Amino acid sequence: MSNQPITPTPHRSPLSTEALGILFTESRTPRRFLPTPVTDEELQAIWELTRWAPTGHNSQPLRAVFARTPETRERILPHLAAGNAIKSKSAPVVAVLAYDTRYHQHLETLTPYNPTLQHHYETNPEERRTKGLFNATLQCAYFILAVRALGLSAGPIGGFDRPALNTALFPNTTYESLLVVNIGHIDNSALHPRLPRLDRNLTITMI
Amino acid sequence: MSNQPITPTPHRSPLSTEALGILFTESRTPRRFLPTPVTDEELQAIWELTRWAPTGHNSQPLRAVFARTPETRERILPHLAAGNAIKSKSAPVVAVLAYDTRYHQHLETLTPYNPTLQHHYETNPEERRTKGLFNATLQCAYFILAVRALGLSAGPIGGFDRPALNTALFPNTTYESLLVVNIGHIDNSALHPRLPRLDRNLTITMI
Repeated sequence: MSNQPITPTPHRSPLSTEALGILFTESRTPRRFLPTPVTDEELQAIWELTRWAPTGHNSQPLRAVFARTPETRERILPHLAAGNAIKSKSAPVVAVLAYDTRYHQHLETLTPYNPTLQHHYETNPEERRTKGLFNATLQCAYFILAVRALGLSAGPIGGFDRPALNTALFPNTTYESLLVVNIGHIDNSALHPRLPRLDRNLTITMI
Repeated sequence: MSNQPITPTPHRSPLSTEALGILFTESRTPRRFLPTPVTDEELQAIWELTRWAPTGHNSQPLRAVFARTPETRERILPHLAAGNAIKSKSAPVVAVLAYDTRYHQHLETLTPYNPTLQHHYETNPEERRTKGLFNATLQCAYFILAVRALGLSAGPIGGFDRPALNTALFPNTTYESLLVVNIGHIDNSALHPRLPRLDRNLTITMI
């Protein structure tokens, strides 16, 4: 521990109630989208936000494919569960978020403070996979909130045929699909009532 | 598909650059905290945000324990890797985020549209675990960004002895620890230079 006096740091304010609503409390998962397009600049901005949020050992194992046309979405839709495919059909963009099973190849650059980590993961494939999937999944959630933070709606879809989608979209690569995310402007007229959340007394404990 | 004309919906604006900085682009993982305390109201607000972000089948498998005193933190610290324990020592609050392996018990309430799902997971423990861990991990990331959204700093820690921490904190429960998160006000004087992020051309593809 340093003996230096602690440098005073200005405390940050919480985000506005409106911003917290957009990110967390008011946003809904779209069942249908408006025809308003999503631009390439918006898609790049989603990734630019996502990539700065923290991952273990700065490992950043997530990759993303953005399907922006009816033809490219057609490569994805047949592999989604039927009810999900309908939702994706109206989405201007369908993103497939994938885990790069060889993410550790970049650790020499990403974790310069730990020069043996890349080799450690090369020789410990089980630990590499467990940690890689955990960190890629964290990044899936950052991605969802980044979409919302940019004023768009995110529709995450977990119900799809993983091996089939991997074959269709990632042949001869080291990627495995984790989550499909519809992206666009929500059509609020198609929403159902919101589902309940668990009570605090079932979920958090103060000690 | 409905034949009704699409109801015009006001498009949302992106959050401010300042808010995007607090959430994603400017925030850092603290190595040391200021002594400023974190209130119980702030901890409850973190959870109130976290619980509204989406999970598969609205399953919400994450649970949180907030250790707020030196004595309760002492139950956690011995199980962290040495370098991590030092960071947690200065944190006013140390949260342990855990996966409830029996989360499906609540699905009758949480997914009223799918009355057979609870039984399905009861009889398919492998699928239950894979999906439960995925959704609990999404919620870990929501939690980290909720801490930031409230003007606090989050220090996620993956390096700890999971079985030992589970025994210390969750005896006779169905919880398994996933992530430790230090919470407080960051001491910026203790930061190292920021680590790099992967280039866009390595991580995203537009099709």
